[in-house]
Amino acid sequence: MKILVINSGSSSLKYQLFDMEKEYVIAKGLCERIGMEGSLLRHRPADGKPVVYEEAMPNHVSAIKLMFRALTASEGGVIKNMDEIGAVGHRVLHGGDKFSASILIDEAVKDAIRENIPLGPLHNPANLMGIEACENVVPGVPQVAVFDTAFHQTMPEKAYIYAIPQKYYTKYKIRRYGFHGTSHRYVSARTLQLLGRTENTRIITCHLGNGSSIAAIKDGKCIDTTMGLTPLEGLMMGTRSGSIDPAIVWYISEIENISAAEVVSMLNKKSGALAVSGFSSDFRDIEDAIENGDERARLTLDMFEYSIVKYIGAYAAALGGVDAITFTAGVGENSPLSRESIINQLSFLGLKIDPEKNKVRGRETDLTAEGSSAKIYLVPTNEELMIARDTKNIVCAN
Amino acid sequence: MKILVINSGSSSLKYQLFDMEKEYVIAKGLCERIGMEGSLLRHRPADGKPVVYEEAMPNHVSAIKLMFRALTASEGGVIKNMDEIGAVGHRVLHGGDKFSASILIDEAVKDAIRENIPLGPLHNPANLMGIEACENVVPGVPQVAVFDTAFHQTMPEKAYIYAIPQKYYTKYKIRRYGFHGTSHRYVSARTLQLLGRTENTRIITCHLGNGSSIAAIKDGKCIDTTMGLTPLEGLMMGTRSGSIDPAIVWYISEIENISAAEVVSMLNKKSGALAVSGFSSDFRDIEDAIENGDERARLTLDMFEYSIVKYIGAYAAALGGVDAITFTAGVGENSPLSRESIINQLSFLGLKIDPEKNKVRGRETDLTAEGSSAKIYLVPTNEELMIARDTKNIVCAN
Repeated sequence: MKILVINSGSSSLKYQLFDMEKEYVIAKGLCERIGMEGSLLRHRPADGKPVVYEEAMPNHVSAIKLMFRALTASEGGVIKNMDEIGAVGHRVLHGGDKFSASILIDEAVKDAIRENIPLGPLHNPANLMGIEACENVVPGVPQVAVFDTAFHQTMPEKAYIYAIPQKYYTKYKIRRYGFHGTSHRYVSARTLQLLGRTENTRIITCHLGNGSSIAAIKDGKCIDTTMGLTPLEGLMMGTRSGSIDPAIVWYISEIENISAAEVVSMLNKKSGALAVSGFSSDFRDIEDAIENGDERARLTLDMFEYSIVKYIGAYAAALGGVDAITFTAGVGENSPLSRESIINQLSFLGLKIDPEKNKVRGRETDLTAEGSSAKIYLVPTNEELMIARDTKNIVCAN
Repeated sequence: MKILVINSGSSSLKYQLFDMEKEYVIAKGLCERIGMEGSLLRHRPADGKPVVYEEAMPNHVSAIKLMFRALTASEGGVIKNMDEIGAVGHRVLHGGDKFSASILIDEAVKDAIRENIPLGPLHNPANLMGIEACENVVPGVPQVAVFDTAFHQTMPEKAYIYAIPQKYYTKYKIRRYGFHGTSHRYVSARTLQLLGRTENTRIITCHLGNGSSIAAIKDGKCIDTTMGLTPLEGLMMGTRSGSIDPAIVWYISEIENISAAEVVSMLNKKSGALAVSGFSSDFRDIEDAIENGDERARLTLDMFEYSIVKYIGAYAAALGGVDAITFTAGVGENSPLSRESIINQLSFLGLKIDPEKNKVRGRETDLTAEGSSAKIYLVPTNEELMIARDTKNIVCAN
């Protein structure tokens, strides 16, 4: 069975076509600048040369049509016709509190995604455009929605309720949702396989990339996570501040005479590592600058690691201990420096990382040193594969 | 030597007169409704009956004058004349980053308190009024400023810098300051005495009252604390939300069509336990309601304790372990229920509280159970005594 996975943004559309026999990516690609001048599609078959289509894509329907042309073309094509595609899985940002798992898309599901637009004002409309474009271009092919928030729906009330007047939750659905759920689910499931059990497990998954979040997972279920109503809360990130005194939003809006919306935009896009270092949101650049003696870069990495260390301590407390800590995503997979520093700062918990094993980048590895009180893993994340698996499972069960 | 301690608010003024030989409160009192209709002074001598003065206090000078009259009156008076007062110590909210210790007040100090008004817009002007009223009424008596922020000035950069553009710190002084500093200092100093050493100590002081904060203290020096630029950040409190996704300030301002200032006022005054329970900000009421089976009250206490448990976990990580946890202030001193629940949730760290010893309220007690990995103490806070001691030490040294 072949499954197409789509991540549809407001002006972009990413796709991967999986052969589910061997969970193998046959081709992938990216439509850029949809609805703008200079739109193009970069299509990459697994076997063969990339093909670039510089064609107008006025909307998502035209992008989806071009994608199918690329997938079936004589040059770079990987399937004969669209009938080979068994189902399409869509990444959807915000499922609100309606969806605790992936689901076959019907009108009611689309309505619910639409209802959650206030909670995901940029992503949910784009995700819907991708879904509706597929309905238009390949009618009859089953489509599945996989939500970034779903995995966190098992959190208990004490973790997701904010201590603000109740009407903001009952009327406006303001609560902690958490994001990167598909990644935390993928990585935690793999961690449980490595541990060899699910019962009586307390694991902490650290998704550290340009966007970063940590989840506390008990017996396979999420009990807390760092991101909140939006992805702004929690850890310091590439360009996001993470948690700060909420009064700062008011304070900056007063002194700069700008709106709260503008302050929050600044906290999302111009803060984090970019703001502290003064030169980059990319932790590879930060690490390079540290080697050259840059003190702001040193402070940036110190702050990033410190925010991670504190959340791991907090979640060890929330879980009543820890059996495994798993690193994933860009920084988590590719920064031996940060992994070692973080675990060394947690040595009071009895955690020990093996410096030799830790030299690895991007490959699943048990990093645990002998005598460590808990396992330490690197597990590369694969949200697309998770979406493909969910899609296959749901389509085959229906 | 007698020291007068003053805590001057915008429309109130609290005082305590100490005899420093035995660190004994000779008299204390409260001027209420300064500058309003129906102002009055309740004066309480340690030996003798309280006296109430229902007199007009149009401003802080008249309040200070009335206080001195009460202190020297034939009925309820405790001193013959003002010359007996060796010095006056003032509680000042915000010392910004200028003051890491208490200081003898001169024009430069007053200017600095004035400069920090943007950071403490309600308290600093009131504190200044108290200082200037004393200069007016008892000229020549030395005055000392004791800052709520000073104890936290030892925090390292990685704990006090927010990951936002640097100009907000360099130009507008936006950083973590922390509050309740005099309480954390008092309680941590006493904890170190009980431990019998300062070197190689890692203690966590939990000031849990209507306002609540926690501090991480290494070798006697604060390295992190939960409150931030303002007292809003950190733990859930009686009426404050504590840390929430900063984007919520924007989100509520949009849906309610109110200003960020109004949202932050709501987060300070109408949130926390009051909002979650729906009926009270007072944890005594919450505990009573739990006994009567109120589920919102149960959630309120669960959330409060959970936020404390997570910060203790985070600060244990920041300190690299913990040698003592000390509870203080209204809830910390008077809620055996919460203390026991919090420590039991931290049993993975090897902490054990003695349920029998823990039945105490408001009295210094070692609550540690046998076999606990760290000490657990109840130390009643006494900010006024700390202010009096600082004042005496500074005046005697000058």
